[in-house]
Amino acid sequence: MKLKPKLSRAPMASVATFLIKTPNPSHSLAKSINTQLSSNVKFSISLKTPKSNPRKTYQKIRISCGLIEPDGGQLVELIVPQSQKNEKKKEAMLLPRVRLTKIDLQWVHVLSEGWASPLNGFMRESEFLQTLHFNSIRLENGSVVNMSVPIVLAIDDLQKQKIGESNKVALVDSNDNPVAILSNIEIYKHNKEERIARTWGTTAPGLPYVDQAITHSGNWLIGGDLEVIDRIKYYDGLDRFRLSPAELRREFEKRGADAVFAFQLRNPVHNGHALLMTDTRRRLLEMGYQNPVLLLHPLGGYTKADDVPLEWRMKQHEKVLEDGVLDPETTVVSIFPSPMHYAGPTEVQWHAKARINAGANFYIVGRDPAGMGHPIEKRDLYDADHGKKVLSMAPGLERLNILPFKVAAYDKTQGKMAFFDPSRPQDFLFISGTKMRTLAKNKESPPDGFMCPGGWKVLVEYYDSLVPSENGKVPEAVAA
Amino acid sequence: MKLKPKLSRAPMASVATFLIKTPNPSHSLAKSINTQLSSNVKFSISLKTPKSNPRKTYQKIRISCGLIEPDGGQLVELIVPQSQKNEKKKEAMLLPRVRLTKIDLQWVHVLSEGWASPLNGFMRESEFLQTLHFNSIRLENGSVVNMSVPIVLAIDDLQKQKIGESNKVALVDSNDNPVAILSNIEIYKHNKEERIARTWGTTAPGLPYVDQAITHSGNWLIGGDLEVIDRIKYYDGLDRFRLSPAELRREFEKRGADAVFAFQLRNPVHNGHALLMTDTRRRLLEMGYQNPVLLLHPLGGYTKADDVPLEWRMKQHEKVLEDGVLDPETTVVSIFPSPMHYAGPTEVQWHAKARINAGANFYIVGRDPAGMGHPIEKRDLYDADHGKKVLSMAPGLERLNILPFKVAAYDKTQGKMAFFDPSRPQDFLFISGTKMRTLAKNKESPPDGFMCPGGWKVLVEYYDSLVPSENGKVPEAVAA
Repeated sequence: MKLKPKLSRAPMASVATFLIKTPNPSHSLAKSINTQLSSNVKFSISLKTPKSNPRKTYQKIRISCGLIEPDGGQLVELIVPQSQKNEKKKEAMLLPRVRLTKIDLQWVHVLSEGWASPLNGFMRESEFLQTLHFNSIRLENGSVVNMSVPIVLAIDDLQKQKIGESNKVALVDSNDNPVAILSNIEIYKHNKEERIARTWGTTAPGLPYVDQAITHSGNWLIGGDLEVIDRIKYYDGLDRFRLSPAELRREFEKRGADAVFAFQLRNPVHNGHALLMTDTRRRLLEMGYQNPVLLLHPLGGYTKADDVPLEWRMKQHEKVLEDGVLDPETTVVSIFPSPMHYAGPTEVQWHAKARINAGANFYIVGRDPAGMGHPIEKRDLYDADHGKKVLSMAPGLERLNILPFKVAAYDKTQGKMAFFDPSRPQDFLFISGTKMRTLAKNKESPPDGFMCPGGWKVLVEYYDSLVPSENGKVPEAVAA
Repeated sequence: MKLKPKLSRAPMASVATFLIKTPNPSHSLAKSINTQLSSNVKFSISLKTPKSNPRKTYQKIRISCGLIEPDGGQLVELIVPQSQKNEKKKEAMLLPRVRLTKIDLQWVHVLSEGWASPLNGFMRESEFLQTLHFNSIRLENGSVVNMSVPIVLAIDDLQKQKIGESNKVALVDSNDNPVAILSNIEIYKHNKEERIARTWGTTAPGLPYVDQAITHSGNWLIGGDLEVIDRIKYYDGLDRFRLSPAELRREFEKRGADAVFAFQLRNPVHNGHALLMTDTRRRLLEMGYQNPVLLLHPLGGYTKADDVPLEWRMKQHEKVLEDGVLDPETTVVSIFPSPMHYAGPTEVQWHAKARINAGANFYIVGRDPAGMGHPIEKRDLYDADHGKKVLSMAPGLERLNILPFKVAAYDKTQGKMAFFDPSRPQDFLFISGTKMRTLAKNKESPPDGFMCPGGWKVLVEYYDSLVPSENGKVPEAVAA
């Protein structure tokens, strides 16, 4: 009896499974979103058919293939149809209210568009327990979907008391405007210590998400079925980049993608990342795919103070595409609305699972994904290899092809970022996040070829824009 | 899309699945154990055929049915055949040595007899990670077995250095006698904090198993294939009760059991427990089973200082059977060799999974199984209902019928233990562990009918035997 879990999967062998014809994702709630993709989305989506592309071949493949199925078989969208909006708004006004924090609202966004399909609302206790203990949820039909990060809504004693025996609550924003209705609610204990220990593998003080969203939250969790009144918007000039899984799927289909590879990031893109992404496309073409499309998918929800903010990252990503480091023709840039947990091997599963729902069947995983330094010890919180190992063994992700990150570094002999060659280590320069930050902060330049000049300029501008805090320290930004 | 995991299962519906004919468990290593059950085992095993039993019918059922299959399809026994013992002993003498602690040896015992089937040795990193993150392990054939508690062997830096490049090590006891060989070894980091957080859901100081077996253990874990030279014995007069899963299976088959229900315990049996067990049998008979057999299965490995020690519990259990509270005819008492983690919902899965391997297809689960008080806060460490909820949803345990514990209490109107009737709460007396301990310590008697007099006498004797420590305190014993 040998117990060797499939640590690596042979992508070619499993490709056939992914390319079976799937029906258009049907929606549990009728959609009412008018998406003018071509006019709204500036650089991320190109509808031109390049002359050199044998488009007809692609379309033939697309017709016979289709994208990977969402978890649970269909994309769960929770935005109420236009025709019911007023009615639902009126109903919400009469219900007990739960006021959402900024992060709660990001989770409403995540749920409303089906990133967490087949979840149809904030978790009830059975889903919460399965998430904590098994990183997966068993559906009624016996199949298992991955779910590693609790998507829960905390309320305090007073809110619980106000809800009383009501079966529904209204979720409202900071101005008390109704955002959603939560029905068939279940209220259960919020054991914060256990949630934190099982999600992060530590209870050390100083975990960013914990400090921000858990420690001071209520002692109860409220789960239920979610109906979101209006699509969640942030009015920050970036909403046009916030494509839903359904919109992304439509875009991939429009482009005739026969493979979609996702790259999750929360940092500026340097040429090492770019190399990796172009190399992945090359490998997929070699495997026989004819039109692999990259989903460059920066995380848009909560990030810790020393990460580069979304708006600056988006500017930087835009430059990277403008400078031709990545091919706009085969790249879709969009914002992933989830908040960041920094929960390493637990969280990378969520990052991968959500991208299945957006149509990605390949996922690039790097060193120490979603990791950070231990908050109180002088070491990384997670083993750098555990992320990709756990991801490759995770229940419910068997359909996804995991593409482990090759290590890229600055090759002094070539004057550019290249895959590290262990036979000549002396030729390579590893530019750490701290190093990158220090350079940008001091308006110095990295070696030529580390990052495209336009992208680097954005970074320098960002650090320039920071007013040093009282102790003269600028928040740290970390690369890769 | 609804996400209601099957919280309760309809036992009758799933019975058919369990009763398919299974071949005799075949063994990965030939067995060399001579088991003289009938002469060695005093009260637990009766080979008489009671006149009133329509044995022929049973045998017909037995022939066409068979016990539940072990996890992974076959029982993994890791004791070397008699013919190879000397050779293996000699080989072990030449290998780098790892000295086993008392608890390590208990795990060797557990592994050697297949309680953790299909594990064939101490966990390698991939099994360890799957255990921590998913409470289950995926086998090469794609099927999933439950595995919630890490079964790992820690070594320190010096031991790691001594092992060097060797592919094998000898595991030796406290007298340096070789116990086993571990082959194809893999040494990986022992992140204690993460292991503790993910197993217990807390890292609070004072967890008994952590203090005893983890905190001062080495910074590395060593996994590999285990070959155990001699069956593990303790020479404490109780070895005759330590039946292996294979022996238990043979016993159940001999008795013509068509259902086996397991009761894990680490405390004295009172009449509330007895009521529960006899009532379970009654329910199984009602379901149509003809010969349900109880596996009364006290845990024999490490327990915390304030639990009643194994030898006293066994004396107490013996009295309970002698006094006729439980029917020896349909009860097998045996010792489960595992150490105790006190890890609540995580550990109860291990307790259930191991009993599948011993042939049990029904598992009785109580309030707060494997739970304890929070080591530093004034509350229970786990929600009292989480154990049975998590157990009922656990991956790899779908084949097992979970029987939730009904609450038994002392019914003053009847003068005996009875199932609590919420319509007349005033009639019931809940006798807590603390209450029971105080009574036994003071040589007072509990109400008539709480525990059989012979069993109670054993408890009083136990507390009598304790020399009070300097502060005059006697360790606390806690009931069920």
